[in-house]
Amino acid sequence: MKRLPAAAGSEYADIVLPRIPAGVTTPEVLLDIGVVEANLARMQALADRSGVRLRPHVKTHKSVELGRRQLAAGAAGITAGTLGEVEVFAAAGFDDIFFAFPVWAEGARVGRLRSLHEAIRLRVAVDSRAAAEALAVISRVRRRLEVLIEVDCGAGRCGVPPADAGGLAAHARSLGLEPVGAFTYPGHGDRSPEARGPASDDEVAALEIAAAAMTAEGIEVRELSAGSTPTAALSARAPVTEIRPGEYACNDLGKYRLGACGPADLALFVAATVVSDAVAGQVIVDVGTKALGREGTPEIGYGRATALPGAVLARLNEYHGYLSIPDGVARPRIGEVVAIAPNHVCPVINLFDQLLVHRDGQVVGRWPVDARGHLN
Amino acid sequence: MKRLPAAAGSEYADIVLPRIPAGVTTPEVLLDIGVVEANLARMQALADRSGVRLRPHVKTHKSVELGRRQLAAGAAGITAGTLGEVEVFAAAGFDDIFFAFPVWAEGARVGRLRSLHEAIRLRVAVDSRAAAEALAVISRVRRRLEVLIEVDCGAGRCGVPPADAGGLAAHARSLGLEPVGAFTYPGHGDRSPEARGPASDDEVAALEIAAAAMTAEGIEVRELSAGSTPTAALSARAPVTEIRPGEYACNDLGKYRLGACGPADLALFVAATVVSDAVAGQVIVDVGTKALGREGTPEIGYGRATALPGAVLARLNEYHGYLSIPDGVARPRIGEVVAIAPNHVCPVINLFDQLLVHRDGQVVGRWPVDARGHLN
Repeated sequence: MKRLPAAAGSEYADIVLPRIPAGVTTPEVLLDIGVVEANLARMQALADRSGVRLRPHVKTHKSVELGRRQLAAGAAGITAGTLGEVEVFAAAGFDDIFFAFPVWAEGARVGRLRSLHEAIRLRVAVDSRAAAEALAVISRVRRRLEVLIEVDCGAGRCGVPPADAGGLAAHARSLGLEPVGAFTYPGHGDRSPEARGPASDDEVAALEIAAAAMTAEGIEVRELSAGSTPTAALSARAPVTEIRPGEYACNDLGKYRLGACGPADLALFVAATVVSDAVAGQVIVDVGTKALGREGTPEIGYGRATALPGAVLARLNEYHGYLSIPDGVARPRIGEVVAIAPNHVCPVINLFDQLLVHRDGQVVGRWPVDARGHLN
Repeated sequence: MKRLPAAAGSEYADIVLPRIPAGVTTPEVLLDIGVVEANLARMQALADRSGVRLRPHVKTHKSVELGRRQLAAGAAGITAGTLGEVEVFAAAGFDDIFFAFPVWAEGARVGRLRSLHEAIRLRVAVDSRAAAEALAVISRVRRRLEVLIEVDCGAGRCGVPPADAGGLAAHARSLGLEPVGAFTYPGHGDRSPEARGPASDDEVAALEIAAAAMTAEGIEVRELSAGSTPTAALSARAPVTEIRPGEYACNDLGKYRLGACGPADLALFVAATVVSDAVAGQVIVDVGTKALGREGTPEIGYGRATALPGAVLARLNEYHGYLSIPDGVARPRIGEVVAIAPNHVCPVINLFDQLLVHRDGQVVGRWPVDARGHLN
């Protein structure tokens, strides 16, 4: 895997820049559909030749149109992270959704989950007896709710120890739920975009242990699901049955630094206008935390204008980005539109209502970010 | 000014917790209107007794209803940070808006700015000759566009050196714009919520220099505008004529740490549900970067459940918050709803479509975040 140093400069010179459509009103999210198509095909090919199903996580793009293209490219279904996401995609006709979050089924969520369970093939994450007990109320004898047991492969987030998957699955079965397998999430890069590289094959090892534990309880293991774009190539092998990458559709600097994509694979940039050059050594652009989030660190920056060597978004306010320009590099003039490569694409899309979709600079449409927000 | 250490623990024990309305579906933004009312009254009283006008920055809340209450409490007008914000509030009847951003008037922005200038009393920020020249096209002889010259009081973001305000103002006047004064922004706390405290009286000093420079050019200085909640008490004095705080309406942990609000003045919390306790020493709650942003640092955390001593949101994924629980503190059970105090309120509100407004736990309404997004 390629690991790039964090220092500003020429490491990013090979990143292929988007052609910026004329007349863009910044800040605007530019999505090059040609790059997306290549990204979708590449991940689908990886899944196909590895003998696993691809179930993309739609949290990255929250776009019905993009989800449809993932299915058209061969995906077996989708993964969602909030109940609202599941609802938006189910309403748009997606009928096979894994809700990969240990939802607490209480109050208004009960009826919403029940409606979804009756309408589509819904699978839900479980990592505790308490949550399984709450969830069991929506299961029926003739239509049992399928659950996947979440196991921890080392990320330390959710998930029981893999060896405990059998006990939790047996408990879920006793409640009337239908445990069909296990899933895990590798948790790379969560602390910062510069954090450690992808886990080795912890995911596969964890899922093997979970499968053995469930089998020992007499449970037929039909699904072993692994996560994440950076680890897709490592985890797409038996006994894993499906992978759930999300970011691969768009990619970003974080994936590039991890070696999870190449320099021509970044489909999404944020168009920004230079609005001030009053302070030496920098220009101010009209993207801040409300367009980019605050993904990054002061050291590596919160995004880069990769067209300009060493141009790093070194600080962000809400509507102001401080684009530092090294000595010897010409500062862009006020009014110039620059393309900002974000560190992490998912929070960026969630901040916009629509994506400006182009093919090499020619606008081909505006796609709503259908499930933007929809947090609860 | 009170400065609190960053360590986890009892420093936050005096923060007054919200009563969480029954039946909340998390994540949900809880806004206690009683606390808001007290916050509005306090800042208005400060402005009144200091002889300055209050022009709140609506970027914090993006809520027409909250903006109306600020006017009702005595505010002279509002401040906005994006053209979209100006449009949303102008459409809702706000007729005196300072657009405190060095907008680049080109393309679609020209017509939009012109429409606003014809419809309301609009003032716009200028900090460069280039931007002034672009902006001049919307000014008319019989209705000249009022501009405020942005000067840098030390934040190093936008703004000409204060002594250069006269030259820029004279140039703007020669273009047909009407320079009416100067404004500045102190830029405290931009690097992290633990960054330095409020600037001393840099703002006032900078504006005095700017005023002298403009007067020397024969320009009548009618407005000297200072910014920010943490510096309001320092900058609300002659020759400053108006202050532009935003966060004071809601407050947050960042303001509390700076001593800019008291422990009973936090009006906004994010309700979160505990969804997993699989990993020792923490629980996972259903708020991540898509509900909170990533405002904070790994050291101080990205928010706190102040009801639990030392309970710090130590890591965030998009939908998962890692709430670390110190040894000896009982972990909340799965399904429990906890109130998270954010470090910075502005990005949080921008991630939600509505605010659940309550008065001490009794729901009194849901207010749309009218200008959510509206980035360009």
